[in-house]
Amino acid sequence: MRLKKVKNAIDYINKSKYFISNPKECKKRYQKIFNNQNPIHLEIGMGKGDFIIENALRNPNINYIGFEKYDSVLIRAIEKADALDIKNLFFINEDANGINDIFGKEIDLIYLNFSDPWPKKRHAKRRLSSIEFLKKYDEIFKNVPHIIMKTDNRSLFEFSLKEFTDYGYKINTISLDLHKDDIKDNIMTEYEIKFSSKGFPIYKVDINK
Amino acid sequence: MRLKKVKNAIDYINKSKYFISNPKECKKRYQKIFNNQNPIHLEIGMGKGDFIIENALRNPNINYIGFEKYDSVLIRAIEKADALDIKNLFFINEDANGINDIFGKEIDLIYLNFSDPWPKKRHAKRRLSSIEFLKKYDEIFKNVPHIIMKTDNRSLFEFSLKEFTDYGYKINTISLDLHKDDIKDNIMTEYEIKFSSKGFPIYKVDINK
Repeated sequence: MRLKKVKNAIDYINKSKYFISNPKECKKRYQKIFNNQNPIHLEIGMGKGDFIIENALRNPNINYIGFEKYDSVLIRAIEKADALDIKNLFFINEDANGINDIFGKEIDLIYLNFSDPWPKKRHAKRRLSSIEFLKKYDEIFKNVPHIIMKTDNRSLFEFSLKEFTDYGYKINTISLDLHKDDIKDNIMTEYEIKFSSKGFPIYKVDINK
Repeated sequence: MRLKKVKNAIDYINKSKYFISNPKECKKRYQKIFNNQNPIHLEIGMGKGDFIIENALRNPNINYIGFEKYDSVLIRAIEKADALDIKNLFFINEDANGINDIFGKEIDLIYLNFSDPWPKKRHAKRRLSSIEFLKKYDEIFKNVPHIIMKTDNRSLFEFSLKEFTDYGYKINTISLDLHKDDIKDNIMTEYEIKFSSKGFPIYKVDINK
């Protein structure tokens, strides 16, 4: 199904069992929605969903929420999930700026995969790894702040490392060329498959406070 | 002059006006030796000296000390310096392990350029960016600890970023491919010229506490 042919994308999304249409009303209640006490991992800007769907399938004891502001992209993830029966996965269609209206202190881990680099300096605050967003994330972590980031964008990664360490994060693990490491457990995003196949290095960092 | 032909390398080094033969006796007295109040920058493992000599020539208001444990390499730096008249440069021929016997709190900046990566895990403590060395450096910084590191070795750089942030350092600037950046002020080491010419990325980070 191509997007152009989806006349009523919102209607389609709304019908999916994976879609949370009223996320603000669910604030501080996500654990109840999953109906278990497993940790909740959030991917912000999850795109077409390959990464989070594969994670959800492989790790039934972890709950996953995919956060994506573009319904035109979210619909691709919903199509994939609809063809499967996954208990530990939900999707939200919102802008990350409003994340504090949507989650309380209930998230265990945030994934930032191939986020928009916003290359212009005046747009730095829009980058999902900027101090501005790190402050927002502080308010949604249940316990220790914990972020895992992957990108092919060198400038964004350099910026992010600076922001993370300025903000008091420590590095658990880091790779400056992920696909040259031993990565048998690596789950790839759509972008990652595309860029790594061209020989560009993929950067990854796992940080917490 | 080739090393093999230098029968008395130590004698040759000892005769140089740049060489400090009794560094332990100079502890806490380096500012007096330079006879000014300018900051003191220390390069540990300076190799053949291209980087530090060029720095000393370009920045007459900064004092430089080159620290190198191998006299077979140090002699190359001394040969170069002997052909010039530099007021703000000295060399020391010691192992970095003993650095706290040589300096008090009198260093403003440490350069770690293309340090030995000691690739085996059991040798990690020998890496000049290990926590073990960061603790030693704390005792020789006059004010805020400040380190600038360059390397072509990805594993060493990944390790170092983790050690630095674990130890409380923040990133001022970082480049994951220095020679693709605007680097008109970059002073290259011998290794850097060799490796960057092969197209390998050069990593650089500037950190302080």
